[in-house]
Amino acid sequence: TRNIELAVVAGDGIGTEVVEQGLLVLEAALAGSDAKIGTTEFDLGARRWHATGETLTDETLEAIKRHDAILLGAIGDPTVPSGVLERGLLLKLRFALDHYVNLRPNKLYQGVTSPLANPGDVDFVVVREGTEGPYVGNGGAIRTGTPHEVATEVSLNTAFGVERVVRYAFEKAAQRERKHLTLVHKHNVLVHAGHLWRRTVEAVNAEFPDVTTDYLHVDAATIFLVTKPSRFDVIVTDNLFGDIITDEAAAITGGMGLAGSANINPDGTFPSMFEPIHGSAPDIAGQGKADPTATVLSVSMLLDHLGLADEAKRVERAVAADLAERGGVVRTTAEVGADLVARVRG
Amino acid sequence: TRNIELAVVAGDGIGTEVVEQGLLVLEAALAGSDAKIGTTEFDLGARRWHATGETLTDETLEAIKRHDAILLGAIGDPTVPSGVLERGLLLKLRFALDHYVNLRPNKLYQGVTSPLANPGDVDFVVVREGTEGPYVGNGGAIRTGTPHEVATEVSLNTAFGVERVVRYAFEKAAQRERKHLTLVHKHNVLVHAGHLWRRTVEAVNAEFPDVTTDYLHVDAATIFLVTKPSRFDVIVTDNLFGDIITDEAAAITGGMGLAGSANINPDGTFPSMFEPIHGSAPDIAGQGKADPTATVLSVSMLLDHLGLADEAKRVERAVAADLAERGGVVRTTAEVGADLVARVRG
Ligand SMILES: CC(C)[C@H](C(=O)O)[C@@H](O)C(=O)O
Ligand SMILES: CC(C)[C@H](C(=O)O)[C@@H](O)C(=O)O
Repeated sequence: TRNIELAVVAGDGIGTEVVEQGLLVLEAALAGSDAKIGTTEFDLGARRWHATGETLTDETLEAIKRHDAILLGAIGDPTVPSGVLERGLLLKLRFALDHYVNLRPNKLYQGVTSPLANPGDVDFVVVREGTEGPYVGNGGAIRTGTPHEVATEVSLNTAFGVERVVRYAFEKAAQRERKHLTLVHKHNVLVHAGHLWRRTVEAVNAEFPDVTTDYLHVDAATIFLVTKPSRFDVIVTDNLFGDIITDEAAAITGGMGLAGSANINPDGTFPSMFEPIHGSAPDIAGQGKADPTATVLSVSMLLDHLGLADEAKRVERAVAADLAERGGVVRTTAEVGADLVARVRG
Repeated sequence: TRNIELAVVAGDGIGTEVVEQGLLVLEAALAGSDAKIGTTEFDLGARRWHATGETLTDETLEAIKRHDAILLGAIGDPTVPSGVLERGLLLKLRFALDHYVNLRPNKLYQGVTSPLANPGDVDFVVVREGTEGPYVGNGGAIRTGTPHEVATEVSLNTAFGVERVVRYAFEKAAQRERKHLTLVHKHNVLVHAGHLWRRTVEAVNAEFPDVTTDYLHVDAATIFLVTKPSRFDVIVTDNLFGDIITDEAAAITGGMGLAGSANINPDGTFPSMFEPIHGSAPDIAGQGKADPTATVLSVSMLLDHLGLADEAKRVERAVAADLAERGGVVRTTAEVGADLVARVRG
């Protein structure tokens, strides 16, 4: 038997509710296989911060590192000043664990209603850079709160960082049917960062002659996501642009309740982290209303990442079948989870 | 009679085609009024750059400054390295003429098909900051083209710059029926810039007690633009976020062919500039296919800015009537222009 040690960071708001169901589906998927899951829960997020002032200590980070993977629910709460948990916990995990690939698939499953009148056949994946760009936390302010305040935010981009994520995106594209990669940036305005991205895509393309590429400014990408999302196969983009377009992409494929993601350290030096892309949704927290599907799809990505491709597919197929048949029925978080567990068991 | 001196920068690609029609509509709108338009054409953009290497000289800039307003078509061409014309001409105009308000209305006119299945009643305006943020051109790179390249882009934000555009947005909101202002930023990640924006909105709100406000992260804003665009009344946001969400907003209200904009220097120190938000569209340039409606709506904003509110309304009503009746008929750029001229004449 293979022992998989999973760090669980359920987090805030609906995070705890959806992770609970995600874990039940994970167990169901592994029942009968020779892999066994051991979980360690890490009580991190708003509760912990209020109690201790801690976001993520070095010790906790080291403890998390000793796991094979991380399942995360959602981080953030209105009672905590904006940025404290995002920068001090969620982004700290992504950066410290060198999650340079933030993988966000977008598929319009059968049975799911898109807000678009004619969405077409939507099935693409966004490879969002996870450790650079405007997310590095390299900003500051002087004369804060006075009429002379100046605040800056620096986007940092390195050839090393851009090349590795671009190569990953080409690898992904090469494995797919359409083998098409779209770079999304804004190189006509952010010329230094943008040209680094562009040159890198051109250079790495030489290693993947089968993959076709094109380029879209981020503003144009937001248009195509609405007018012709079927044009996309793989998108590679920076941390901030990736944040923005993946939310729009989730919206057109049925909403935040269905969008899973993986923060991957492809080198395997550190555990990768799997999380729904939605937030903690304080407005519906504690009511059993949250859709755990995004978390369950993240669990499927987790299984795939651990080399359990069959189990991963079984979970994704369970989700697909559930979506195809759910219609307008309203179920609780636990009910959706139970239905998915039943489908995974088969 | 009042003499209005208009600087015309038709620019590249379809820019020249749509500006031609925009000017015809402008003349029609002023016929019979006591305002007279004199135009000076400035040959700027790709052609000029290829011929002379110039983007915008100090002399030309000074000449443009001596006008009451600017009508701009589109800037940019694939034969010119990316960024040269955008930074050296378009953004140089916006920055040098202190266009700190980039006003972008979004209205789903009757007769226009939205890509959304249920768009609802869409009528909002984005107040995009125009002279700060990641657009300042404060970036650089070292070891370019080597594996050790590092490229940066700095977002600069000042209390002075944020406050004036936020105050403008509150003024706009106060004049509207719903009196609602939404700040769009990403203050949970870009904490320094974001908190400056947030504090400023809170502070200026005290001067506008009638205006209600809310806040959305930019990623969440891209969702609501697809799922519930009717929720927006006035949006205020930074230069880059404004660029991104106004393209998405244009897409859901009928596309780039219909989206006008104004780059305003509210102080009146420098001429304001009116332009469609679409680009030079090299793929359809020279074919008489471009829809001049976005430019005509920009002309309406130009008239309004010059204090010619009746004429502005006449132009907007002509556009609304044309849109309501156009159905599936395909017309050339000139035909649409002629139809709008006829409607403006009444
Ligand atoms: C919570 C926030 C810091 C995060 C991000 O901006 O990356 C979220 O929006 C996401 O997309 O995972
Ligand atoms: C052409 C480009 C520099 C410009 C911008 O980014 O502002 C355009 O996209 C716009 O929105 O007017």
